[in-house]
Amino acid sequence: MQCTIITIGDEILIGQTIDTNSAWMAQQLNFIGIKVFEILSVSDDSAHITNALNRAMQTSQIILTTGGLGPTKDDITKNTLARYFNAELVFVDTVWQDIAAFLTKRGLTALDSFKTMAYLPANCEVIKNQQGTAAAMWFNEQGKILVSMPGVPHEMKDFMSRIVLPRLQNELQLPAIVHKTIMCVGIGESFIAEKIKSVEDSLPSHIKLAYLPNYGVVKLRLSGTGAHTKQITEEVNHWTAEIDHILRPKYAYGYDEEDLTEAIGKLLMERNAMLVTAESCTGGLIAHQITAIAGSSRYYKGGVVVYSNELKQALLGVSPNTLLQHGAVSEETVRQMAQGALARMEAQYAVAVSGIAGPGGGSPDKPVGTVWIAVASATEVRTKKLQLARNRSINIELSANLALAELRKLILGVDGK
Amino acid sequence: MQCTIITIGDEILIGQTIDTNSAWMAQQLNFIGIKVFEILSVSDDSAHITNALNRAMQTSQIILTTGGLGPTKDDITKNTLARYFNAELVFVDTVWQDIAAFLTKRGLTALDSFKTMAYLPANCEVIKNQQGTAAAMWFNEQGKILVSMPGVPHEMKDFMSRIVLPRLQNELQLPAIVHKTIMCVGIGESFIAEKIKSVEDSLPSHIKLAYLPNYGVVKLRLSGTGAHTKQITEEVNHWTAEIDHILRPKYAYGYDEEDLTEAIGKLLMERNAMLVTAESCTGGLIAHQITAIAGSSRYYKGGVVVYSNELKQALLGVSPNTLLQHGAVSEETVRQMAQGALARMEAQYAVAVSGIAGPGGGSPDKPVGTVWIAVASATEVRTKKLQLARNRSINIELSANLALAELRKLILGVDGK
Repeated sequence: MQCTIITIGDEILIGQTIDTNSAWMAQQLNFIGIKVFEILSVSDDSAHITNALNRAMQTSQIILTTGGLGPTKDDITKNTLARYFNAELVFVDTVWQDIAAFLTKRGLTALDSFKTMAYLPANCEVIKNQQGTAAAMWFNEQGKILVSMPGVPHEMKDFMSRIVLPRLQNELQLPAIVHKTIMCVGIGESFIAEKIKSVEDSLPSHIKLAYLPNYGVVKLRLSGTGAHTKQITEEVNHWTAEIDHILRPKYAYGYDEEDLTEAIGKLLMERNAMLVTAESCTGGLIAHQITAIAGSSRYYKGGVVVYSNELKQALLGVSPNTLLQHGAVSEETVRQMAQGALARMEAQYAVAVSGIAGPGGGSPDKPVGTVWIAVASATEVRTKKLQLARNRSINIELSANLALAELRKLILGVDGK
Repeated sequence: MQCTIITIGDEILIGQTIDTNSAWMAQQLNFIGIKVFEILSVSDDSAHITNALNRAMQTSQIILTTGGLGPTKDDITKNTLARYFNAELVFVDTVWQDIAAFLTKRGLTALDSFKTMAYLPANCEVIKNQQGTAAAMWFNEQGKILVSMPGVPHEMKDFMSRIVLPRLQNELQLPAIVHKTIMCVGIGESFIAEKIKSVEDSLPSHIKLAYLPNYGVVKLRLSGTGAHTKQITEEVNHWTAEIDHILRPKYAYGYDEEDLTEAIGKLLMERNAMLVTAESCTGGLIAHQITAIAGSSRYYKGGVVVYSNELKQALLGVSPNTLLQHGAVSEETVRQMAQGALARMEAQYAVAVSGIAGPGGGSPDKPVGTVWIAVASATEVRTKKLQLARNRSINIELSANLALAELRKLILGVDGK
């Protein structure tokens, strides 16, 4: 079962917009067992769109297009499709009512120019837009399925999740595919592979395992294919448990794209504990990642960004002697930062980071990429040294995630080594 | 002059990687006056690549491919190109020496499997990789130019900037195109359009103006086309000055993708001044954006993330009465946050933000999206209320940029209204 994705719009060809839609669509299609044969980006030009449709009809059973469905004159996808299938455009009153209601609700006038959006090819099934104005169109023609959707990402995603994916799965009687992703942190992919080798070697051929690393987080994705959803779900759950048995709780922190900060938030809430942060080289990124989660005020009191030695002393009580003798990037300093944060901001847990993110500030003793982490509770302080070697932004991202990994282990009371 | 971009690699078709390369390439090509006709993503499959090449050769004078040049057996671009052009693969010893040196320098063994990377089609001009191992190939065949590059973004960008773009411009005798982007903040695009209407109406037809908004920052891009670089540069500079005259210093803060935090850093350094931050709803994002700039420790002392009322009192001295009477999201609170930050962290400038990012926490009085900003110097405090209306992450991003915009105006001493 093959699919071609056609992205319509000049904004991609002039490089103004990065095409994130196609990657998301490809991922979702692969998840249900549809292979993406090709992704094509073409301009708002009728001949060009027609040419792309011809090519896609030759190679693929399914064709998904996005873009070119707005009310302006450069939005020509709909007219092109009508001509392509020799269909007339008919006015769909219920679509027009929906558009008018959508605009009115937002205090906008339903101008007549929007009426063009309610004219749709007679041979398509209209799918109403619950997130915006332009309707999607489902065509069954020449033994192929073609669906045309708007290019606005959240509108496209709503159409795909709500209608297109379930219906493709159903109509095409695709084999059941079940995915489960185990989120890991604080361990490299090759070390994971070593630890779970015996499980991986025992996987049956219809269960696949993929490693997807990203700034210190490694996603392990199990994908099972079979005839029956129930049976394959049970199998995938079985193998997930086998891997969990080895990697959880120390490294495996959650499932299915869960954020590390969200997982840590749950642990803190279970313990009725509050967290504080003390950041130097990560410069507020840890705080930002924690507060990106809605409701984080229930377990996060706040923190400090102590970029200067002066503030390390004033806000956290790091001793001037320690800074003088060992420097700001040292085990002693980061330990005092964590302890100072805990005491002065009165919390149960603290995480502290001090390092040299680069490109400047390195020395032979402490090259760029030297980072010290400390995590502290009322009864324990743990420290860890990282030796990173990349550019500034990667060093900052990695330090934040690896510090959070240490914090998580401290909260759980598992070995930090 | 038309170009087709072909992206080769299964990782894009399975949605594992978002194709950011093509957008960057399209932007750079458009900058020098080459139109991108089509962007194609195809799999690591020889027949499929050949098919894509056939189609591109029919429509485009220039074909740029990325990907499929590594040492593993699924990297088949090079062999496909050799067959496509009926050329033999020849061993290029200098390329092999470069690869071996590159690997050795990084403590890696130059395994024999890497030797396949030094076999290159006899009919191409080899371009050495200064950032990695796989060489690029420049073909002049059938009156077309085809360049094959590795897909690693920083390697591709180096090839494009260093060799491909200058050489295309030179060999194809393209018209001179000059761009200048004026970076603005703290004003919406429709208000900018109103203010610069007379300038925009006077622009000659060979000078185009584009508005590119992004989280409170608006980029105004002037693009001039003509026969002579010197003359067109002068013209673009003239129109840049006309726009600057209206928008600078209040709204226009820099040129050509300069970060707002970098521009603020320069202002602070000129004044020998230090900045501190006091964040509630932005949760560390302002600190993170400031410290993302290398060398920011010269003008940024640090800051606090006071997510709880307790820390607003303890770290910044916000009065409990104020919090009780007016709430954490109020003009009074944010004013005390900025003043407290200035006094306790001993700096010349402070920026403070408190708001309701959502989705929870709103009330009829203070709905989600209500945000108060304060900026302070030794002699002045300014406050501003925002009423945003979108989702959590957009509210956080917008609040951070708009707070920085107010800070910039305070430093410059321009009217905050």
